[in-house]
Amino acid sequence: MAPIITLLTDFGVESTYPAQMKGVILGRCPAANIVDISHGVPPHDVRTAAFMLAATAPAFPQGTIHVAVVDPQVGSQRRILAAEAGGCVYLAPDNGLLTLVTHRDLIRGAGASAQGPMRIFSVENEFFFRTDVSSTFHGRDIFAPVAAAIADGAELEDFGPPVSSIERFDFPLAEHDGCNITGRVVYVDTFGNLVTNIGGCILAHRDPLRLEIHILGAVIHGLSRAYSDVPAGALLAYIGSAGLLEIAVNRQSAGTRLGAGDGTPVKVGLVP
Amino acid sequence: MAPIITLLTDFGVESTYPAQMKGVILGRCPAANIVDISHGVPPHDVRTAAFMLAATAPAFPQGTIHVAVVDPQVGSQRRILAAEAGGCVYLAPDNGLLTLVTHRDLIRGAGASAQGPMRIFSVENEFFFRTDVSSTFHGRDIFAPVAAAIADGAELEDFGPPVSSIERFDFPLAEHDGCNITGRVVYVDTFGNLVTNIGGCILAHRDPLRLEIHILGAVIHGLSRAYSDVPAGALLAYIGSAGLLEIAVNRQSAGTRLGAGDGTPVKVGLVP
Amino acid sequence: MAPIITLLTDFGVESTYPAQMKGVILGRCPAANIVDISHGVPPHDVRTAAFMLAATAPAFPQGTIHVAVVDPQVGSQRRILAAEAGGCVYLAPDNGLLTLVTHRDLIRGAGASAQGPMRIFSVENEFFFRTDVSSTFHGRDIFAPVAAAIADGAELEDFGPPVSSIERFDFPLAEHDGCNITGRVVYVDTFGNLVTNIGGCILAHRDPLRLEIHILGAVIHGLSRAYSDVPAGALLAYIGSAGLLEIAVNRQSAGTRLGAGDGTPVKVGLVP
Repeated sequence: MAPIITLLTDFGVESTYPAQMKGVILGRCPAANIVDISHGVPPHDVRTAAFMLAATAPAFPQGTIHVAVVDPQVGSQRRILAAEAGGCVYLAPDNGLLTLVTHRDLIRGAGASAQGPMRIFSVENEFFFRTDVSSTFHGRDIFAPVAAAIADGAELEDFGPPVSSIERFDFPLAEHDGCNITGRVVYVDTFGNLVTNIGGCILAHRDPLRLEIHILGAVIHGLSRAYSDVPAGALLAYIGSAGLLEIAVNRQSAGTRLGAGDGTPVKVGLVP
Repeated sequence: MAPIITLLTDFGVESTYPAQMKGVILGRCPAANIVDISHGVPPHDVRTAAFMLAATAPAFPQGTIHVAVVDPQVGSQRRILAAEAGGCVYLAPDNGLLTLVTHRDLIRGAGASAQGPMRIFSVENEFFFRTDVSSTFHGRDIFAPVAAAIADGAELEDFGPPVSSIERFDFPLAEHDGCNITGRVVYVDTFGNLVTNIGGCILAHRDPLRLEIHILGAVIHGLSRAYSDVPAGALLAYIGSAGLLEIAVNRQSAGTRLGAGDGTPVKVGLVP
Repeated sequence: MAPIITLLTDFGVESTYPAQMKGVILGRCPAANIVDISHGVPPHDVRTAAFMLAATAPAFPQGTIHVAVVDPQVGSQRRILAAEAGGCVYLAPDNGLLTLVTHRDLIRGAGASAQGPMRIFSVENEFFFRTDVSSTFHGRDIFAPVAAAIADGAELEDFGPPVSSIERFDFPLAEHDGCNITGRVVYVDTFGNLVTNIGGCILAHRDPLRLEIHILGAVIHGLSRAYSDVPAGALLAYIGSAGLLEIAVNRQSAGTRLGAGDGTPVKVGLVP
């Protein structure tokens, strides 16, 4: 079975940099099956990349090697991490990018499978790197050959010492005060749908028709199942495919319509 | 030989949703060779997706499984179709997306190979779906595992009952009144070239130099073969790679230049 | 080992044309491993494509078949070239696109490996083409099946006669007058980083801290190693991943900040 290596970067969908990574991977592990998660992370936006990775990785089979390169500090002393979690391997700079995949409970209800033991190592062994490592493109010169080596059977211990703590950012947790749940938008997808940090499991034992969702002055009464449950152009709220509360406009962009984006507050009133 | 699965969606070229579909496919059929047709269908634009699918599918070998997900009614009662036509399989929501691949004669001259028998089934058997199917991302939870099952040898009959009629939209047919052919633009490609619904075969027995093509007040005299047959910046008409009459501007965008788009009328005068 | 075929075109990241090429390739060489270099070359921009190809190809292993289709003269008498250089094969129209990969010394220091012998042939043997070659999409009808044939073992001699001279454009060479090096921007990457034609090897024996880089009135003192060597928003210069001098703004776009682009003059003052 061909080892799967995924790539997630902020290099841009028109960039040749992902191809350079692929060339290096295939030169060292010709059997690798390389899958792009996205190269459209907003430049340098580690938090959005962390969410995209955590929302996407659970769809991949055990043994997948996820390579995430959003790395504004490339060439500095920041470490590179190789983490094993939930039966998959993650390679990323130590800048917070692994915050959510190593603490999947932060987005509870997001379809995370059992975590299993987690091990994290610092990637330092130059034996696995390309010769003449550049100071600005470790994706090609370090991440790619290391991913190929893992696909080819190398153990994480081979790359460097174990790491006991890593960089994390504060992922906002939805707050629950008995009557209301207060959260915020954490991701806007390509349709303009607003993904919040409010897990569907928090709402699971409530009557979905007796919830009120408040966002930027708009009020949505009850949860829908499908976009087409409401007329074209109408707002709706529903538990989305990442297991999180989402707000959308049927056939339009909720982001544009509401002027909402990353960080916009969302409140769910629980009608008793 | 690895089974080929293509993906055509309106998820956007920066979206992580196609990768989620790929993860599910590879988890169930590791040998699958997944090829993106495009993820740049304008959001919810079933008609454009239908054209893109019909223009692209003939380039793929027999046995290819084409998965097309432009699905604004996802989660509603709309059916999901599995169709066998021309030696390939098509998976799509029952919303008109298969209009052209199941009636390839609508774009006669578009390079369609012999159709062979056509069989269509409604995909209903949850045995093949992911557990916990979301109501908003059937691409990942139904289309992907069903495509993997087909690639792995499942028969279309296994998924649900045969279907006798499917949703179709009215694809405009070019009209022929003896002297003139009246058609319209049905697709604008990434260069701004205007693809019409006028099949090259209709024009095949005419002298290409004695045709006059009218669009939005502009007149093009005769058909060209190559863009460079005319000076940079000049209009030309030719039989394009889909077998249809196209209008372009050498080295520029005809769509921008003429202000033309989907639906713009085109008239071909046949000089006797 | 699966033969690798790369694709570089100006078809656009949303286009279905690359998929049509892939369908044809896989129909003729099912084992091919197809990798996109980029489909985001600016339309008809042969010079930028030539740079993207030369900067990316060295990352791929020996034996890779690189297919580059930026071809505004498609359908005219322009030739199609199959070149073997540096252990790889290049297929491209004879319009300058191979200028840099066949004269890699033009971007000395760009990580080029030893060239080895170079052989170039004109692709003329219709036996390998698709039937009914269109006049506007040779990518699908000629390049794709020829690439598949090479991947499947055909010899370059099989496609047509050897070629002794090919189209080349004048790639600007950095000029060195003892005190100063004068060059220019030759590529702006997806981050807005400005890649110049000044090879790192020219600067290698100088003290990097005693260089002054001048661009559009701005002066950068010394070379940095990493973006984060300077504060966010500050200009820096460094030897980039292609082995060439680059100018960037940490966490921002230097192209936007400076109003710089392809052709912008850059001067390096060598402090004695």
